[in-house]
Amino acid sequence: MPIKDIHQAIEARFPDHLEAIREFVRTPSISIDGTGITETAEQVKGFLEEAGAEAEIVPTKGHPVVYGELMTGKPKTLLIYSMYDVMPVEGEEWIVPPFGGEIAELPDVGRCIVSRGIYNTKGPLRGFLNVISTLQELESLPVNLKFVIEGEEELGSKHLPDFIAKYQDRLGGDAVFFPWFALNRRGRPITYLGAKGMIHVELASQGGEWGGPRAKGIHSSYGAWISSPLWKLVHALASMLDEDELITVDGFYEDVREPTAEDEELLANLDGVFDERMILEENDVARFKYDGLHGADLLRKYLFSPMINIDGLLAGYTGPGVKTVMGHKAIAKLDIRLIPDMTVDGALSKVRDHLARHGFEDVRLEGIGGYEWSRTSVKEEVVEALHESYRYHGHEAEIWPYIGGSAPFYLFTKQLGLPLVMGGLCHGGGAHGPNEYAVLDQLVQYEKSIATFLLQFAFGSVD
Amino acid sequence: MPIKDIHQAIEARFPDHLEAIREFVRTPSISIDGTGITETAEQVKGFLEEAGAEAEIVPTKGHPVVYGELMTGKPKTLLIYSMYDVMPVEGEEWIVPPFGGEIAELPDVGRCIVSRGIYNTKGPLRGFLNVISTLQELESLPVNLKFVIEGEEELGSKHLPDFIAKYQDRLGGDAVFFPWFALNRRGRPITYLGAKGMIHVELASQGGEWGGPRAKGIHSSYGAWISSPLWKLVHALASMLDEDELITVDGFYEDVREPTAEDEELLANLDGVFDERMILEENDVARFKYDGLHGADLLRKYLFSPMINIDGLLAGYTGPGVKTVMGHKAIAKLDIRLIPDMTVDGALSKVRDHLARHGFEDVRLEGIGGYEWSRTSVKEEVVEALHESYRYHGHEAEIWPYIGGSAPFYLFTKQLGLPLVMGGLCHGGGAHGPNEYAVLDQLVQYEKSIATFLLQFAFGSVD
Repeated sequence: MPIKDIHQAIEARFPDHLEAIREFVRTPSISIDGTGITETAEQVKGFLEEAGAEAEIVPTKGHPVVYGELMTGKPKTLLIYSMYDVMPVEGEEWIVPPFGGEIAELPDVGRCIVSRGIYNTKGPLRGFLNVISTLQELESLPVNLKFVIEGEEELGSKHLPDFIAKYQDRLGGDAVFFPWFALNRRGRPITYLGAKGMIHVELASQGGEWGGPRAKGIHSSYGAWISSPLWKLVHALASMLDEDELITVDGFYEDVREPTAEDEELLANLDGVFDERMILEENDVARFKYDGLHGADLLRKYLFSPMINIDGLLAGYTGPGVKTVMGHKAIAKLDIRLIPDMTVDGALSKVRDHLARHGFEDVRLEGIGGYEWSRTSVKEEVVEALHESYRYHGHEAEIWPYIGGSAPFYLFTKQLGLPLVMGGLCHGGGAHGPNEYAVLDQLVQYEKSIATFLLQFAFGSVD
Repeated sequence: MPIKDIHQAIEARFPDHLEAIREFVRTPSISIDGTGITETAEQVKGFLEEAGAEAEIVPTKGHPVVYGELMTGKPKTLLIYSMYDVMPVEGEEWIVPPFGGEIAELPDVGRCIVSRGIYNTKGPLRGFLNVISTLQELESLPVNLKFVIEGEEELGSKHLPDFIAKYQDRLGGDAVFFPWFALNRRGRPITYLGAKGMIHVELASQGGEWGGPRAKGIHSSYGAWISSPLWKLVHALASMLDEDELITVDGFYEDVREPTAEDEELLANLDGVFDERMILEENDVARFKYDGLHGADLLRKYLFSPMINIDGLLAGYTGPGVKTVMGHKAIAKLDIRLIPDMTVDGALSKVRDHLARHGFEDVRLEGIGGYEWSRTSVKEEVVEALHESYRYHGHEAEIWPYIGGSAPFYLFTKQLGLPLVMGGLCHGGGAHGPNEYAVLDQLVQYEKSIATFLLQFAFGSVD
């Protein structure tokens, strides 16, 4: 069937597709506390079955993975990776109920669906499945599909490696696709060819044999002769990063390698193209931390620097007013981003050794999880197919070697050895924060672009 | 009336006195959120009137002061300073309801009243007023009394200076007495001749022109090129104190003077006397931070060192699990203890200058309050009267030049120029924490010791 007819069919069905998307984000599926996880996994299994796939809910030690196969006997097989879980919304101020799937006007963006998960990543997933159902109705699905839809991405995909190991024999294919709203605010599609690795970890300082109160807070005046677990944590943290935010963990940059020739070519292409001002505006930030750097030089810092962020500090009395107390335990929640050739184990042991060497052997690392980094070459067929399909819709992608964030893509690229690409022509934003959104009027284009991509990937052309 | 008869009268009335004490702590009077403050101020006014004083509730810009005068035409006048407010109990685990006034067995201490305020300071206050009522009934009150009972001590006595300024002309007298449970756990009375000064202050780091997210949290991956308000706070804190907890705020020790000859004499008397082990046990701490120091040398560090404590850290995501976010604001609640000749204004401006000089001009000081330090000489008549009254009950006081904690005593000693002493023969503990207590069987001795002290102070003898 000609691509134009497929697009028309999508357009005709779009009112129903839109309702399906809005309905999907209305079920909270918060992995951190398990809210709605079971129901949502069942929903996803149902969506796959409606599209004609064989689907199952695969238990893990955490939240289940929904696995599906839709084998049509076509020559090419695409593995779809996505997630059905979302971040919590506590402590955030929303202009609409965060699980309402409501339509609202956002300044500078326009009419959007504003709802947790609409961008990251239930919106892109449901839109993708809408397209598959349509293609099946039209008997025009051009590829075989396998689906790995996990429920713990926002927790660091802790049990996805177990699933991948268990299903490794069935996960063969030609490439992996991660459905995503790839347009930036100015309507330009961005392709990220890789993701940084990430470790999340807690640094915990508690009174013990070294000193400090062991089991409960004590009067703060004792601080004149009793050591404080809070000060110990502050100094342990300060020892890891200097005042210019350069990481000072001993040997932390040892495994960092220079960007490759392909990386540098991509950076050169992005010089003067990627929109620095927009990134500052979107995040309500006045300046980058690298004064005087712009273009490729600025981007190189962003994409090729490891990073340690303090996600949260939890220590002592944090209520209103004053309580003069020395707490017995202080915790810093950190996330550490890894770039080639750093590894989770390597970085963790460097942090551990650093703490021990600098007198912080009593500051413990707890609650550890992590991903390795991932990268696909711009020359891979699946990447070219995506960009060719964008061109069909009149878009030229801005190609970034990495995204600043992290995802468990390494399980597919390193462990299964498959190229992985992410995309789709819609704009969204506000991940992990209030008023997460997707632009309403672009959702139909997103679904069309998915169909175009599948045909392009299957046949090397859409004509 | 002979002292023995007065003591017998107290003993006869003690069951009622005990109920009055338990009843008083059952009304929460939490200054931080205002719970029960109005009712409790009314209660205190009632107690003063029952004892025959003229009493009034004096409004301030915060919680009111209860002021009273009980003028009996005696030659000597004692000004009583106390407080009717208590610390909050949130986040604390109690073995009984914290506002129940219940009796419970505590390990190593025995049968106690366990209740917020029983030690700090509603127990000592109510016990003192029980004695005054008894002395009045016996027509044996040997002094004139003035009462200043404030409701904001736990907030740093923010509006007490206004009250003192307004009532300065009426606050004359011979000395100030602060009713207190002065016995330590081993049954030894401790006299603290002074109190450290204190500043409480918040250090606030927020995104702004310097960088960092200004109004809401952003995705943590941006930490690779956007500065973090949390890291800025950590570095600002770390710049103020080194890893040995020596204060590194520029010039912070400039105004610190050597202990006086009287201080050194008192320290020498305490050498080998004050119980280091007990202090560690009571606080469940393994060691002091000054390895190898003991006796007078250890105590000198405690009492003659300024101190900066982190009461609490409030920043970013502090819920369960992981949220990869860079917060837009981070706050550290601090208390700073001041010793002679430091001043609140001097120390604050040193902190301010230090932050500015070290690149933290964007870290703001907020929510400031404070006390100056205070000191009364051991040679003052009122101090000698207290110690002579202890001897009557078979106790020899351990005399400390200062307490490690703080109180607004400077308003009386520096502003009004009066000597101030605190005491009474009962043991209590757990101030500002869970299971605050006073030893049940010592409360009658406390009341007797108050009567003995008043007679000793009035007549220079109890015979």
